[in-house]
Amino acid sequence: MRLSRYFLPTLKETPAEAQIVSHRLMLRAAMVRQHAAGIYTWLPLGFAVLKRIEQIVREEQNRAGAQEMLMPTIQSAELWRESGRYDDYGKEMLRVTDRHARDMLYGPTAEEVITDVFRTSIRSYKDLPKVLYHIQWKFRDEVRPRFGVMRGREFLMKDAYSFDLDTATARHSYNQMFVAYLRTFARMGLKAIPLRAETGPIGGDLSHEFIVLADTGESEVHCHRALLEKAIPEGVDYDGDLQPLVDEWTGLYAAADEMHDVTKAATLGDDLVTARGIEVGHIFHFGTKYSAPMGATVTGPDGEPVTVAMGSYGVGVSRLVGAIIEASHDDHGIIWPESVAPFHVGLINLKVGDAATEAACAALYESLGPDRVLYDDRDERAGAKFADMDLIGLPWQVIVGPKGLGKGVVELKNRATGAREEISAESALARLAG
Amino acid sequence: MRLSRYFLPTLKETPAEAQIVSHRLMLRAAMVRQHAAGIYTWLPLGFAVLKRIEQIVREEQNRAGAQEMLMPTIQSAELWRESGRYDDYGKEMLRVTDRHARDMLYGPTAEEVITDVFRTSIRSYKDLPKVLYHIQWKFRDEVRPRFGVMRGREFLMKDAYSFDLDTATARHSYNQMFVAYLRTFARMGLKAIPLRAETGPIGGDLSHEFIVLADTGESEVHCHRALLEKAIPEGVDYDGDLQPLVDEWTGLYAAADEMHDVTKAATLGDDLVTARGIEVGHIFHFGTKYSAPMGATVTGPDGEPVTVAMGSYGVGVSRLVGAIIEASHDDHGIIWPESVAPFHVGLINLKVGDAATEAACAALYESLGPDRVLYDDRDERAGAKFADMDLIGLPWQVIVGPKGLGKGVVELKNRATGAREEISAESALARLAG
Repeated sequence: MRLSRYFLPTLKETPAEAQIVSHRLMLRAAMVRQHAAGIYTWLPLGFAVLKRIEQIVREEQNRAGAQEMLMPTIQSAELWRESGRYDDYGKEMLRVTDRHARDMLYGPTAEEVITDVFRTSIRSYKDLPKVLYHIQWKFRDEVRPRFGVMRGREFLMKDAYSFDLDTATARHSYNQMFVAYLRTFARMGLKAIPLRAETGPIGGDLSHEFIVLADTGESEVHCHRALLEKAIPEGVDYDGDLQPLVDEWTGLYAAADEMHDVTKAATLGDDLVTARGIEVGHIFHFGTKYSAPMGATVTGPDGEPVTVAMGSYGVGVSRLVGAIIEASHDDHGIIWPESVAPFHVGLINLKVGDAATEAACAALYESLGPDRVLYDDRDERAGAKFADMDLIGLPWQVIVGPKGLGKGVVELKNRATGAREEISAESALARLAG
Repeated sequence: MRLSRYFLPTLKETPAEAQIVSHRLMLRAAMVRQHAAGIYTWLPLGFAVLKRIEQIVREEQNRAGAQEMLMPTIQSAELWRESGRYDDYGKEMLRVTDRHARDMLYGPTAEEVITDVFRTSIRSYKDLPKVLYHIQWKFRDEVRPRFGVMRGREFLMKDAYSFDLDTATARHSYNQMFVAYLRTFARMGLKAIPLRAETGPIGGDLSHEFIVLADTGESEVHCHRALLEKAIPEGVDYDGDLQPLVDEWTGLYAAADEMHDVTKAATLGDDLVTARGIEVGHIFHFGTKYSAPMGATVTGPDGEPVTVAMGSYGVGVSRLVGAIIEASHDDHGIIWPESVAPFHVGLINLKVGDAATEAACAALYESLGPDRVLYDDRDERAGAKFADMDLIGLPWQVIVGPKGLGKGVVELKNRATGAREEISAESALARLAG
């Protein structure tokens, strides 16, 4: 993409309302614009990142055997009355009345809708287990939306729902999602720690939050150092027994501040790490909480009806855009991990109008592939170009000017390390080849 | 995907409420489930088709130079008051009040939001032209939603918006979208006819509807036969002059029933075709209708402010799923064009449990690629498998049973023509290779 054409209205000044670094950088880098409190428009650069994150989430859900579908944003209040949540949910639920005076709402989550789909579709235990998910916009009418997309009102969430005949198979579905989440966040260049979470009145140990580490994170976490160094599972057989793998991860101490056991933690000695983090996922087995009141049953092996056991599994897709920036930035701007970068390379033309520079840039642009490169072909001074490119944080920069070309070189800069090398255009191409 | 795992709750009976064939088939083939009047849940099969259509729309928008972004579903009423449409829009607008008693709405379209983004981002004529688009869910609170996804309340639309300095360059943006639409619908296997549409008080000739032909279509169209046979433009230079190409298409007679000129049409003689069709796209240049009241100006070449000229360009993405079925089905079910099919091949195992059949199916499944194949490995009778496979309409079927394998063959069936061949598994593989 040529920057002269790209819609990238970066800001020199940081809007005063932005309190955290990801919000500041997303506004300055023209990733989002606020439309209303907690509601954002995603400009092309932000949208590209959002799509890459969504695609990683999707691939790992599919790999784990979950099936993608799509539930609507506007839901019928009737189902929420059946589950008993309509009155409980309070003011965070955006309630709507349609032209025929029917009570509707903008879904903050979809347990009721998916349970309704299930009960009208699946009759036999033979069709279990099923894990179904969607990636859809949600709305929660937060009283004080803030921190940009980290705590917006309209936000993109992946929510999966599992349906099983009994608790034993439900645990397998839970483990599939647990492992999928480890892989999902790792692929985005994040260190994610699973923390046991409150299960409330349902009890049991099947609830975990996934926290990504970032110095600027919202909350404090305590964990065993080994958790930070564990290798991410590769080549997982999701049909096989995942319990040993899950036990490996959950056997090491890890706790959020409010569940921190100081005495137990002290036994870790030097292996105790205290860090800050951001919640990006939550998995939860809740048994028959929705299936019982809503009558989601299947015929069991003995011909008797069985109320299905359910779990839900959320990933904050739009929140992850902010979380990744919180985890990966410096004073100059964002530093995108390669897997989620909106473009792989930023190509900077230091002298627009100079024939040799234009030709070298055009050749690099075509060879690297216009979809992978943001080519700054604007007639701007070099300082402004460097600043914008650092701000938007593409993994690599190729800087091309008459002086270098005279010596037969371009400059290759790694955004994360800041390392610069003068190499031939051919070598740069070879290094950056897809 | 193995059908024994896939969430595909097909229906034997057609729900009584479905009045048109696409609605009946989408319900029976388990593509969608109605959640509430005019609001649907997309089950995995329907979702897969929706995504393929969306991707074709996206690719052709990008090719034409439009840039993707994403505007929110919930919009501020304030902007609609600025444009003057808040009170005019009537009951089709789903109005919402948030917890702080602010007037919001579920966007039925996004002219106001994009104009607001533009006026706060772009200052100079040098940054024009721009064509921005998003593919987002919309809500129109139809008084009587019907015909399934063809006339739902919550629906997926691609809407693009162009911004230009003057009418001449605005016409170029318009032409880019015109040509992109020709390509978009053709890639989905549809015959699409551009019809001049009413421009209302704004006047001019820059408004076209795109109608796809289907015997069961909602409206009657009249056009020159040559329009049906025109080759779809390939290798288009979207920066070049597109006017001759657009003139070629608009120079031939074409009119919806309400604009039909019987006298003029009569001069066509045998070249006049009357057919039925479905509107799937609408492009419209509306000049300063929104930019003037909302103050969207840029500094022109002479330093004076210029109110930008705008157009909008819609494609009914979810509607297209229904439209394609209306255009391509038979008594047995859907017939997907290859480009939008949810899977390329349906693999039918005629004797589950038979070792040779299982082995042959497993080998075909792996070789063809599990993402491209829906493998009916259920323990069901052959008749039910044939009926389901015809219903869901994958382009190809490979039917494998002990009898054929004894002769060294499988059966390859083309869903569209019904043609069947007995060939070796290797030949089938070669024929179906991606």
